[in-house]
Amino acid sequence: MNDTPYVLQDHQDGVVTLTLNRPQVRNALSQGMLRALLAALADIAANPDARVVVLAGAGPAFCAGHDLKELRAADYAPDYTEALFADCAELMQAIVALPKPVIARVHGVATAAGAQLVASCDLALAAADARFATPGVNIGLFCSTPMVALSRNISHKHAMQMLLTGELIDADTALRFGLINDYVPAAELEARTTALARQIASKSPLTLAMGKQAFYRQAELPLDQAYAYTRGVMVANLQARDAQEGINAFIDKRPPTWCGQ
Amino acid sequence: MNDTPYVLQDHQDGVVTLTLNRPQVRNALSQGMLRALLAALADIAANPDARVVVLAGAGPAFCAGHDLKELRAADYAPDYTEALFADCAELMQAIVALPKPVIARVHGVATAAGAQLVASCDLALAAADARFATPGVNIGLFCSTPMVALSRNISHKHAMQMLLTGELIDADTALRFGLINDYVPAAELEARTTALARQIASKSPLTLAMGKQAFYRQAELPLDQAYAYTRGVMVANLQARDAQEGINAFIDKRPPTWCGQ
Amino acid sequence: MNDTPYVLQDHQDGVVTLTLNRPQVRNALSQGMLRALLAALADIAANPDARVVVLAGAGPAFCAGHDLKELRAADYAPDYTEALFADCAELMQAIVALPKPVIARVHGVATAAGAQLVASCDLALAAADARFATPGVNIGLFCSTPMVALSRNISHKHAMQMLLTGELIDADTALRFGLINDYVPAAELEARTTALARQIASKSPLTLAMGKQAFYRQAELPLDQAYAYTRGVMVANLQARDAQEGINAFIDKRPPTWCGQ
Repeated sequence: MNDTPYVLQDHQDGVVTLTLNRPQVRNALSQGMLRALLAALADIAANPDARVVVLAGAGPAFCAGHDLKELRAADYAPDYTEALFADCAELMQAIVALPKPVIARVHGVATAAGAQLVASCDLALAAADARFATPGVNIGLFCSTPMVALSRNISHKHAMQMLLTGELIDADTALRFGLINDYVPAAELEARTTALARQIASKSPLTLAMGKQAFYRQAELPLDQAYAYTRGVMVANLQARDAQEGINAFIDKRPPTWCGQ
Repeated sequence: MNDTPYVLQDHQDGVVTLTLNRPQVRNALSQGMLRALLAALADIAANPDARVVVLAGAGPAFCAGHDLKELRAADYAPDYTEALFADCAELMQAIVALPKPVIARVHGVATAAGAQLVASCDLALAAADARFATPGVNIGLFCSTPMVALSRNISHKHAMQMLLTGELIDADTALRFGLINDYVPAAELEARTTALARQIASKSPLTLAMGKQAFYRQAELPLDQAYAYTRGVMVANLQARDAQEGINAFIDKRPPTWCGQ
Repeated sequence: MNDTPYVLQDHQDGVVTLTLNRPQVRNALSQGMLRALLAALADIAANPDARVVVLAGAGPAFCAGHDLKELRAADYAPDYTEALFADCAELMQAIVALPKPVIARVHGVATAAGAQLVASCDLALAAADARFATPGVNIGLFCSTPMVALSRNISHKHAMQMLLTGELIDADTALRFGLINDYVPAAELEARTTALARQIASKSPLTLAMGKQAFYRQAELPLDQAYAYTRGVMVANLQARDAQEGINAFIDKRPPTWCGQ
């Protein structure tokens, strides 16, 4: 098992699919898995051919959260747990900070830090039979880091329902809560996610990078500061060749050709 | 009437049911009622046997908001109104700050500060015929304190619809807005709320306390600070005996035994 | 065309309908249009007979966003784009700051800054066949100012879906996202919006002004500061003659008579 890569990477037409590859432990976010994901995101950030990321899981589940056996084997030592949750928080913020859209492709269960991964991605598509939970309360360990991503995506009452009961919710409830963008028949999940990823990969990568960064930054500002900041983003975006090309192409009724600048 | 307690308390299996007990005035939040609720919450905070709180109303309504006759009898004197809204704001924040989950059990109407109570609780179950409003605009007194709790639970457009029109919304609309977690047939409301409360009361009280406190605190922080804070909460939670017991029990496939430490 | 007013104003029974009046360019927010709207809002702010504003569009669409041909004609010059987005941000914030409710009445398409107008209004009613998009990503110019209003009304995943795909959503999806309050058959849109506007115009204008201002201000504060602030608003509101009249009328079971003080 130590020879098996934690994360599989597949590059196709600008779309990088990262597949968590520890199906026998339902892709638990062990220290090794967290660091492999961080390394993969760093590669993607530096690779201009990588335009959109799909995050998926091998085997029966998307991701079942942290590796509890590793936690017990480490005897819950503060040194280990501090490093573990530092890596975990870094990973979740790296997804948000990555200047490329990240789509969660969720099947089976996404629980605890697995649900946090879904919430941290920009978009999420799920199989109709996928289920979601933040069940830490059942094992005495409240999902206090998952709640950060959860509560920035769904309302307080919905988040508290998941956090206090620890119960699984189905895809329809996850859609109603706003945790996912849509669900589709399991057999169509991969094709539908790829189609969405390719659609977004056809946009100007410069524009996507400016827009994603601006989104999460302005969301934390008061209204007047958010406008002062995004006004500047618009003015800067309009100096880019891709914006001028895009507007000219739109007016001239021809497809644009992006140069990424 | 002065001999009747404002609030009835019932303790059973770790669940404390607080029943607003002025049915003849639809449980109006008079100064006496606000202070009785504050005293009850202080008792509950100090009582280790109280694990989960259910907030309910006696008679035909959950709560119809402030006591308008008391306001008029006081001739709208600033001293009185300042004290009244200080108590009210303290109560709503005491619900949020209580280190134990609070569930609103809503029947009849929950209006003005009554709707604020619902929004301030961690969870809310309603009867299918329950209705909700922030109707202050109809009497020249905008629901400016209720809006604080409302707008932290439901979206701006939905909150503004309630605040500007003052109209009653039904349970189905309240569910769609995210003001309540679910509604059930009126005849089942008490049993279903008790079942939910007992389910949550079966969790580690230490874990519930850490988790609830962390939730509302992190919700007000920027993403990086929220993660810096909750990472520390996770590490601290893992040092608790309940977390180690919970994880060990989960791995060993046996039920956990909480010690509350 | 230069003689045609950019914005038509119709005053009736306290309701001012502002109609964007460049149907041939789908009411594009050119510099002239932005400034005409700003001037109209300034007039309305100063006019005590204007109690509620309805924002509508002439012709086949509500508003298709910025005027791309004007942008190209200006050769994307920084001086021009800086002034344009300063006006645009000022307009959106003027809607929020206006001490009178503003209702968007949406038909056809509301795209880019047109969708931003919808999100910036306090309430929005749409025709059943109305559609919404933030399609800037398709022309290399991410909708970075529209996202400010969008993300203060709808959840992150929903906003990102609109921003990253640029696709049109229908009225039912806009309702589910919380971007609009309701949709009605196109033939009923005008009558239904007028009825809603008149209902709100029948409230005390003083109360509406205090409440709307308080709403957006408290929404940006932490919970304790939000309560400290709104407690004061309630106490001040209760000193107003309209509040005392409203409460007295309610207790005495008669309709109130507002004096606006």
